Amino acid sequence: GGDVAAGKTKSTRCASCHGADGKISIPTYPNLAGQNEVYLSNALNAYKNGERTGGMAVVMVGYVRSLSDQDIADLAAYYASLGEK
Amino acid sequence: GGDVAAGKTKSTRCASCHGADGKISIPTYPNLAGQNEVYLSNALNAYKNGERTGGMAVVMVGYVRSLSDQDIADLAAYYASLGEK
Repeated sequence: GGDVAAGKTKSTRCASCHGADGKISIPTYPNLAGQNEVYLSNALNAYKNGERTGGMAVVMVGYVRSLSDQDIADLAAYYASLGEK
Repeated sequence: GGDVAAGKTKSTRCASCHGADGKISIPTYPNLAGQNEVYLSNALNAYKNGERTGGMAVVMVGYVRSLSDQDIADLAAYYASLGEK
């Protein structure tokens, strides 16, 4: 399973686009705060596995390709823990 | 642009998986409430255009293939209007 504290530490590279608190006003980027943990993990893996293309996928692939399964689990746990469910 | 009221009417087919209020406890499905409007529109178009595969994409394609550009705009406006930004 994912570790919220570890995910927070690992999220620094995510924050420039997704906001320090997982909420961002850039309309083409998704808010992540309070998103379902398994969905977040699946979405990151989908980018990593080439199952999402178009839009910002090329950018996301650049970020996620170096993430381990544990990194993905930690990040998903962290963003799911933020804000309203 | 999207019309919130029209989107609400059109969202009935979405609610079984994404919740009547755009929040759902099924962990593999994303919450939609308060998500950025342009992101939601882009995501629906990505499914429609075959730019998302794997996971639940085959289900989403079934739902979105019949949506017009206006339908997508209305649904995005509706879900973006819900809940916390």
